[in-house]
Amino acid sequence: MAGTMLDFYFDFSSPYGYLAAEQIEALAARHGRRVAWRPFLLGVVFKQTGGQPLVQQPLKGDYSRRDMERSARELELPLRFPESFPFASVAACRAVHWRQGGDPTAAGDLVMALYRRAFAEGGDIASSDGVLEVAGTLGIERAALEAALQDPQVKEKTRKEVEAALERGVFGSPFVIVEEEPFWGADRLPVVERWLSRGGW
Amino acid sequence: MAGTMLDFYFDFSSPYGYLAAEQIEALAARHGRRVAWRPFLLGVVFKQTGGQPLVQQPLKGDYSRRDMERSARELELPLRFPESFPFASVAACRAVHWRQGGDPTAAGDLVMALYRRAFAEGGDIASSDGVLEVAGTLGIERAALEAALQDPQVKEKTRKEVEAALERGVFGSPFVIVEEEPFWGADRLPVVERWLSRGGW
Repeated sequence: MAGTMLDFYFDFSSPYGYLAAEQIEALAARHGRRVAWRPFLLGVVFKQTGGQPLVQQPLKGDYSRRDMERSARELELPLRFPESFPFASVAACRAVHWRQGGDPTAAGDLVMALYRRAFAEGGDIASSDGVLEVAGTLGIERAALEAALQDPQVKEKTRKEVEAALERGVFGSPFVIVEEEPFWGADRLPVVERWLSRGGW
Repeated sequence: MAGTMLDFYFDFSSPYGYLAAEQIEALAARHGRRVAWRPFLLGVVFKQTGGQPLVQQPLKGDYSRRDMERSARELELPLRFPESFPFASVAACRAVHWRQGGDPTAAGDLVMALYRRAFAEGGDIASSDGVLEVAGTLGIERAALEAALQDPQVKEKTRKEVEAALERGVFGSPFVIVEEEPFWGADRLPVVERWLSRGGW
């Protein structure tokens, strides 16, 4: 096996990202891999690719809402949309990059706590306050994270991660990369699983 | 069971449509349903929705080519792209609507022959000649079809079918509707299968 990581790219504002995040760690573990949590900013990517948020597209938007809800029901996962949706995910993204301290396999607990606040509870993780509150439930010191969210180095780290995602061809959320093989979409997880089982085809 | 049909919407220029078409009849049969073959024109839909062909989109285009080829390999189906791609699918679409004569469950053989010419062999079905040649292999009289392709009534039938697809919220190819439940994408076929097995969830 060339690598032991499975790269999981996601935007915190992506409901499909949430649904996939709920499954990815168990999937990776079944194949002896660790998840590299790679939050990025879809808004920045869309500026480069001309994409736009799914739920704002004609017809596709209505469909995707319905499909998200249907997918959640099938997975038996709660799904509630925050009042403001899609929302700015930069604070949540920076919080995770700071917490990881350079180790992308770290801070999975923060990722899941943030995602669940947003999409299981329909809570706010767009504001710094929302992010700080979720982090507080994990015992993360408020003052340290508050400073980190304004730290130029953390901002720069986040900017570089988003750039790196674009360079690897990531254009949507969630997006899994196994070695150099890309898989876009929560609905591709069964394909990822078969790919890992067989070592490709 | 409310209906015995399974509506299969597709554009002849869609490789994912081809991959799904190869599976849809067996899937429907497993659940006691007949396929209603509903070719439409994605180009007309895109004019309404602002969509654009998948393979022409930055990043997503490269990915989708790769994913189409990977999907075909997994399904053990041949996949060759016609020299000109995406291509105009209006002649193929009209040919099927004419051949069906109002019965959407008819002309499955023509659908598959056209799709295979395009994507198993990489042949031309954009031109009237290409369509006539494929139809000829099924014993369809050339003169009759040639006239049909120019028949205002056939053109009108096709226009109405595309309009009806849009009214049902069809924005991509393939697109399956089971009763009023919509499923977009070849990768949703396993979901359609589970939906039919359980009668929804």
